[in-house]
Amino acid sequence: MTRKEVPAVFTGLSAFPLTPLRDDRLDDRAYAGLITRLVTAGVASIGALGSTGSYAYLSREERARAAALAVQHAGETPVIVGIGALRLRHVLDAADDAQQAGAAAVLLAPMSYQPLTPDEIYRLYEQVTAHLSVPLVVYDNPRTTHVSLTDDLYAAIAKLPHVTSIKVPPLPADPAIARDRVTALRGRLPGHVGIGVSGDPVAAVALHAGCDAWYSVIGGTLPRLALDITRAPDAAAARAASDRLRPLWDLFAAHGSVRVVAAIAEHLGLTAAGCLPAPLRGLAPDARNAVIHALAEVDPTA
Amino acid sequence: MTRKEVPAVFTGLSAFPLTPLRDDRLDDRAYAGLITRLVTAGVASIGALGSTGSYAYLSREERARAAALAVQHAGETPVIVGIGALRLRHVLDAADDAQQAGAAAVLLAPMSYQPLTPDEIYRLYEQVTAHLSVPLVVYDNPRTTHVSLTDDLYAAIAKLPHVTSIKVPPLPADPAIARDRVTALRGRLPGHVGIGVSGDPVAAVALHAGCDAWYSVIGGTLPRLALDITRAPDAAAARAASDRLRPLWDLFAAHGSVRVVAAIAEHLGLTAAGCLPAPLRGLAPDARNAVIHALAEVDPTA
Repeated sequence: MTRKEVPAVFTGLSAFPLTPLRDDRLDDRAYAGLITRLVTAGVASIGALGSTGSYAYLSREERARAAALAVQHAGETPVIVGIGALRLRHVLDAADDAQQAGAAAVLLAPMSYQPLTPDEIYRLYEQVTAHLSVPLVVYDNPRTTHVSLTDDLYAAIAKLPHVTSIKVPPLPADPAIARDRVTALRGRLPGHVGIGVSGDPVAAVALHAGCDAWYSVIGGTLPRLALDITRAPDAAAARAASDRLRPLWDLFAAHGSVRVVAAIAEHLGLTAAGCLPAPLRGLAPDARNAVIHALAEVDPTA
Repeated sequence: MTRKEVPAVFTGLSAFPLTPLRDDRLDDRAYAGLITRLVTAGVASIGALGSTGSYAYLSREERARAAALAVQHAGETPVIVGIGALRLRHVLDAADDAQQAGAAAVLLAPMSYQPLTPDEIYRLYEQVTAHLSVPLVVYDNPRTTHVSLTDDLYAAIAKLPHVTSIKVPPLPADPAIARDRVTALRGRLPGHVGIGVSGDPVAAVALHAGCDAWYSVIGGTLPRLALDITRAPDAAAARAASDRLRPLWDLFAAHGSVRVVAAIAEHLGLTAAGCLPAPLRGLAPDARNAVIHALAEVDPTA
């Protein structure tokens, strides 16, 4: 399902763990445990400090330490480190720190406060890629950045040096429409630039519609369930594996995926209670019970 | 047009200056000049580190220094300091720094990356106000925060200690509809909590619809033109003064107000070129010329 021009690190399951806090400080031990869990499961790459990893909330020092911990515990598994920030200077600082930590690649979303113009977005990527020595994944996440990258912007940014993958928002759930969308986008990108999908509920469809990678939230906390989808022998089996997780997808839609995986991680003892950065809060008791119930349904051995 | 229960600092023209950079560093001298200009013009209060003042892009150190400079150069004019951040811990740090600098009040927008729930927003204000010793202005700016505060949330937050004003998004331009909106909102708020409007083009209407204050972008750079509106003897005169600035309002809508006032400040020599934090960029030459042309039209003496 992937093309050979795309480097292996940008194919298959890229798992995005939480960056857990304890008493509002980085929980080094829990974070190391989450990374080790992903390595043991055999994910293709680890997406440290993605949206699920709360990069937008952490200080430079916390981010640098998390990047170093992730690389240290990932061993041979490549680590992609999120470097987004509202200010260009802070993005460049995060890029330096990620490279210093040994990141295999970096991931950059165009965070915004004042709405950005297309020219500002392009020049952000231009200036960051001019500064980099590792590959860059373009991270298009309109739900959090409030920036929507057009296909024209994808095409322009994909020509910049170091750009090697684009993490696109959820694709349509209809397989034929999803395939048309991937084919159209592929036509706008150089052959060496992979396409990775976010939006866990449509990942099974997207991977068989031609996406190279799945940048996965659930894979960062329950990697085995995500690998059941990426390792399925065909599209039907992948969709069946995904459909079994429907109770989780419904909770993602209701509460936001990060709150749901935080509740799972806390329930499984992978992190302390209250692992998200305030003002984000853990789920209320009713929702937490629904998550625990759904988890028991989709993964009785968890 | 204002009620006597509302403290004077939260009435009339509150002017929001840029926080100008020079070579991507805080331009202390230009900032002092902007503050002095506002004091000389006679604004009622200064809104340092608002959205126009790029608070969301600056480091803790830059924000602390800007707050101190603003208070130092404001003399007797009260300074309201923006303390918003994505993380609660960073909001509390900014509150400490603002109080240490001598801020008369603080201004808090619920910045978001992951969308916030109503409960998360309420608890953010609850935790910050429990920590404060100065008044707080609730800053509702959905265009940048991507959070919309409901009237129920306004009402709940307005009961918290230290809450003294709410900076609401632009009101409808129709005077009767604007008055109905202010009256309805007033009915939900304690008498000591003022209502201030943002959205410069509708400020003349809003002030005569019952708003106590105008939290003003244009007032931060061209205070005299803003005072022409707030000091107008009646509603018709205020609207006429505002209508004279229509060329600027149109440019605000086209390019974002912060880019337009940055172009004006740079043109007038109040700041260095490139005073905004990247990835924000100054206007392209055509748009910049349009701004200079509009400025000459609305204020030939500028």
